[in-house]
Amino acid sequence: MGFDMNSFMDEISQRKAFIEKCLEQYLGGEPKNPPVIHQAMYYAVMNGGKRLRPIMVLEGARIAGGSGETVIPAACAMEMIHCYSLVHDDLPAMDDDDLRRGKPTCHKVFGEANAILAGDALLTEAFALIADNALIEGIQPQDVVRVIRDIAGAAGSQGMIGGQVMDLEAEGKQADHDLSLLHSLKTSELFKASLRAGAILNKLDEAGIQSLTRYGHNFGLAFQITDDILDVSGDQNLLGKPVGSDEKNVRTTYISLIGLEGAKEKARQSVQACIDSLNSFGSEADFLRNLARFTLHRTA
Amino acid sequence: MGFDMNSFMDEISQRKAFIEKCLEQYLGGEPKNPPVIHQAMYYAVMNGGKRLRPIMVLEGARIAGGSGETVIPAACAMEMIHCYSLVHDDLPAMDDDDLRRGKPTCHKVFGEANAILAGDALLTEAFALIADNALIEGIQPQDVVRVIRDIAGAAGSQGMIGGQVMDLEAEGKQADHDLSLLHSLKTSELFKASLRAGAILNKLDEAGIQSLTRYGHNFGLAFQITDDILDVSGDQNLLGKPVGSDEKNVRTTYISLIGLEGAKEKARQSVQACIDSLNSFGSEADFLRNLARFTLHRTA
Repeated sequence: MGFDMNSFMDEISQRKAFIEKCLEQYLGGEPKNPPVIHQAMYYAVMNGGKRLRPIMVLEGARIAGGSGETVIPAACAMEMIHCYSLVHDDLPAMDDDDLRRGKPTCHKVFGEANAILAGDALLTEAFALIADNALIEGIQPQDVVRVIRDIAGAAGSQGMIGGQVMDLEAEGKQADHDLSLLHSLKTSELFKASLRAGAILNKLDEAGIQSLTRYGHNFGLAFQITDDILDVSGDQNLLGKPVGSDEKNVRTTYISLIGLEGAKEKARQSVQACIDSLNSFGSEADFLRNLARFTLHRTA
Repeated sequence: MGFDMNSFMDEISQRKAFIEKCLEQYLGGEPKNPPVIHQAMYYAVMNGGKRLRPIMVLEGARIAGGSGETVIPAACAMEMIHCYSLVHDDLPAMDDDDLRRGKPTCHKVFGEANAILAGDALLTEAFALIADNALIEGIQPQDVVRVIRDIAGAAGSQGMIGGQVMDLEAEGKQADHDLSLLHSLKTSELFKASLRAGAILNKLDEAGIQSLTRYGHNFGLAFQITDDILDVSGDQNLLGKPVGSDEKNVRTTYISLIGLEGAKEKARQSVQACIDSLNSFGSEADFLRNLARFTLHRTA
């Protein structure tokens, strides 16, 4: 099957624009008090991200036979959780990054205290939004409750936060720690939870939810490996951050463990595993198949 | 009506012990991976707090005609939200406190990065727990969804976090800013949400929920004013922190605004407003009446 990168990029851009319009509605508009925290939240989210997690929430809904419109609050919530984690990861006490996508990080603009609180507020608002998803016609409150438990597990101390803890512990050590567990927690958990959220809210059967879970797991791996590859061979103007930072920070990556060619091969295998997990869906899952292939072609 | 402080303190102690047993079950037990984040979460919560918020969740359930047992997950969740806020407030970028209840603060023991992440994880786990409350017999998922929205609003950028932002903005300024709005957000919001959560999950009517909301608002004010009073006239061994810190930090308090006698009078008025809000409940609300009176007698 062919993969037309350009027309797929157009499709992604359209979906991204739709998500950003929705995020703008939640975070923009009339100024709220106190102003600074809401400005910091807006800055942290409206920063040119790829919006992959909300796109996955909408796609999970569509694959389950529902419309993306039924899960907009949950989709925006997943992006807020992702963005809160970036704001906190960038803090001086953590990765101490001054730039994110080529722009000053949240704490550089608003100060550390406001960045910590803006992250907290985005995480809190995310759960309010998912709860709001119950107000949409056809969405059942018991499914919303299940999604909240699922997302909290994915984002929590044994999910994404656990992955960040492992990452901080590993920093500066060129150690043979379990890189795939670390990334499975730090990256895959939110992708999995995003697809599952859209699907659960639209009553996909359990076998289908399991297929999407496998996809999300392998997508996270493919995404992280290609991140490592871009760090050594990417264009820093497109990335918005300097290349070679992993080596400089003595961070264990797939490149340092298995070399550039080994990493490329592992990325291809993960993408194939993504595609294989979608067999039961037929052509309905073509977008997700292409999204997996896209990770091998991305430049940022 | 008389108020027997000693027997009421016994009652409070019993309820506190029950809550701590429940918190221990959620946060203790088998070690979880990665260990350090779970140790930091445990340390941040099992630290001798007064457990007023979970006690209020249980009491909200009881007043609504349900049992406290029906809302244990939500009760523990409120304590986790309170404790996460303390961990983040204590950080060097915020209030920069080394001691909390006479013990080193979370970041002093586990480092700043782990303290930030432990706070994030407690907030996340709190929402998982509230969602879990739907698993308890007799609790309706639509009420759980309403409670999640309610609590997220109370804890978020226009609630507790908004109050902390205002507090940081006011620090070092002996300004005539709106102290009651600040404390209403920073303190009252979680008390209100706690009482409401127990009551909503047990189907109290809207008029009753409004009464409890008024109580929570005034309780927060009474609690904050007596906090200010203890800061100038308390026993630092009982408080676990030095007295006089508000003056040292040039923090606007009720004492600096209206003097010690004025503050005592305002505390009494707030307690009376708490008691007045409970008229429709009769003797069922005696515990909450005494809890309000107790703020005038507390030593820590």
